[in-house]
Amino acid sequence: MNGRYADFLYQEQEILPAVSIDCVIFGFHEGQLKVLLVNFGNTQLYGLPGGFIKNHESLDQAAQQILYRRTGIANTYLEQFYVFGEPNRVYSDTHKFIMESNGVELPPEHFLLRRFVSIGYYALVDFTKIHPNSQIENEAGYWCDIYDLPKAIAFDHERIIQKAWESLRMMLDHKLAFFDLMPETFTMNELQSLFETILNKKFLRANFQRKMLGLGILQRLDKKWGGGAHKAPYLYKFDEAKARVYANSTTWEQP
Amino acid sequence: MNGRYADFLYQEQEILPAVSIDCVIFGFHEGQLKVLLVNFGNTQLYGLPGGFIKNHESLDQAAQQILYRRTGIANTYLEQFYVFGEPNRVYSDTHKFIMESNGVELPPEHFLLRRFVSIGYYALVDFTKIHPNSQIENEAGYWCDIYDLPKAIAFDHERIIQKAWESLRMMLDHKLAFFDLMPETFTMNELQSLFETILNKKFLRANFQRKMLGLGILQRLDKKWGGGAHKAPYLYKFDEAKARVYANSTTWEQP
Repeated sequence: MNGRYADFLYQEQEILPAVSIDCVIFGFHEGQLKVLLVNFGNTQLYGLPGGFIKNHESLDQAAQQILYRRTGIANTYLEQFYVFGEPNRVYSDTHKFIMESNGVELPPEHFLLRRFVSIGYYALVDFTKIHPNSQIENEAGYWCDIYDLPKAIAFDHERIIQKAWESLRMMLDHKLAFFDLMPETFTMNELQSLFETILNKKFLRANFQRKMLGLGILQRLDKKWGGGAHKAPYLYKFDEAKARVYANSTTWEQP
Repeated sequence: MNGRYADFLYQEQEILPAVSIDCVIFGFHEGQLKVLLVNFGNTQLYGLPGGFIKNHESLDQAAQQILYRRTGIANTYLEQFYVFGEPNRVYSDTHKFIMESNGVELPPEHFLLRRFVSIGYYALVDFTKIHPNSQIENEAGYWCDIYDLPKAIAFDHERIIQKAWESLRMMLDHKLAFFDLMPETFTMNELQSLFETILNKKFLRANFQRKMLGLGILQRLDKKWGGGAHKAPYLYKFDEAKARVYANSTTWEQP
């Protein structure tokens, strides 16, 4: 019997009923927008790292704890983006299958067999700094290309991923959230690749560069070491102070 | 005994436990941003129209039903904006007080005395078209100036209102949501007044007009009937098709 799954038999009194949390963790690496999935032990099913809210936890604390327990990622800024609560969001068969595959039989009235709503949280992480660690609950974390997700995604987690991606696109303008996805320094090409991947469209190089520099939030550093010095691209970093000011303003704020 | 409150004694089996919905309805009238509050029968307490999710309802359907039952407003587009779930969001004393004021004594284990999270929904409505009707549940709906809310607001509803207002400010750029707050035709002054009220700042008239016309989403109509024709302001309306296209685009979409 897998301990993580057996725990569900006992924890009902410690958690808020009818509410779960699912985390969508985005990273960007080598031109791919990636999302972190876990495998539901002893099955071929994949899904988002998720879990429940303990009685003493706030929603934000619960999201942090869930992400940590399921993936080993600690202290990442997570933000709510949507609540999923369709009445046909009932997955008692899938829950039974996952639990039975892990040696646990659910009693008929178990809370996993009833309706619950799931609060979606997402985070944008610097891929180079995050190393999912599956030791804690014996589940492996997988970075999956968002354009090539596994076929067997459990529950409505594919919909949750799509909705998170939609929120990410809407935030691109708005909050400059994208800088959390980039490493500390990067080339203009790498930044353009991020935008092209998230928005699924191509930009003209010169236009993209002009627009991005026009935001006044990039700081140009030395050239990247490369072959011929004249061909090496400049490295940039975000000017965090200016970027935060920009992210908190709206274009209506200056009369 | 007030029927609406007595119903709470019986409905636990029909609803999703631990989750409620609260609706923040914004309207704009005579230079004031208003929010719709209800009075909790037989008390001096005000709060948002809220309620619970029936077993067969989606979250969106439940929000519509709650708004209708509490205020008589039907078929309004409501959108989720945040979930409130701090563990100290426990209001058993307030719930007891409201229920006792309405002749209902809650049993010790009643669900209203336990922790629940509340999903915030908001709507922007054309004030001139909405007439809150309190007949259904014998509660009065009040339009309150957001800069002058009643002092006795129950639970964390003031925080929910503030958070909804924050979401409204963020959406101003983004989705042109503001056109739902305006009547069909309006003057540039009226539109400027809406922006100034939501953002709590003044704009220069010429700048505001240039910027707004620059969006390409306004259609100029005849002059408003007034005293001297040369002084009468133009009336405008939103070009809905253009406005929807604009609202769904991001500034990154055109390379």
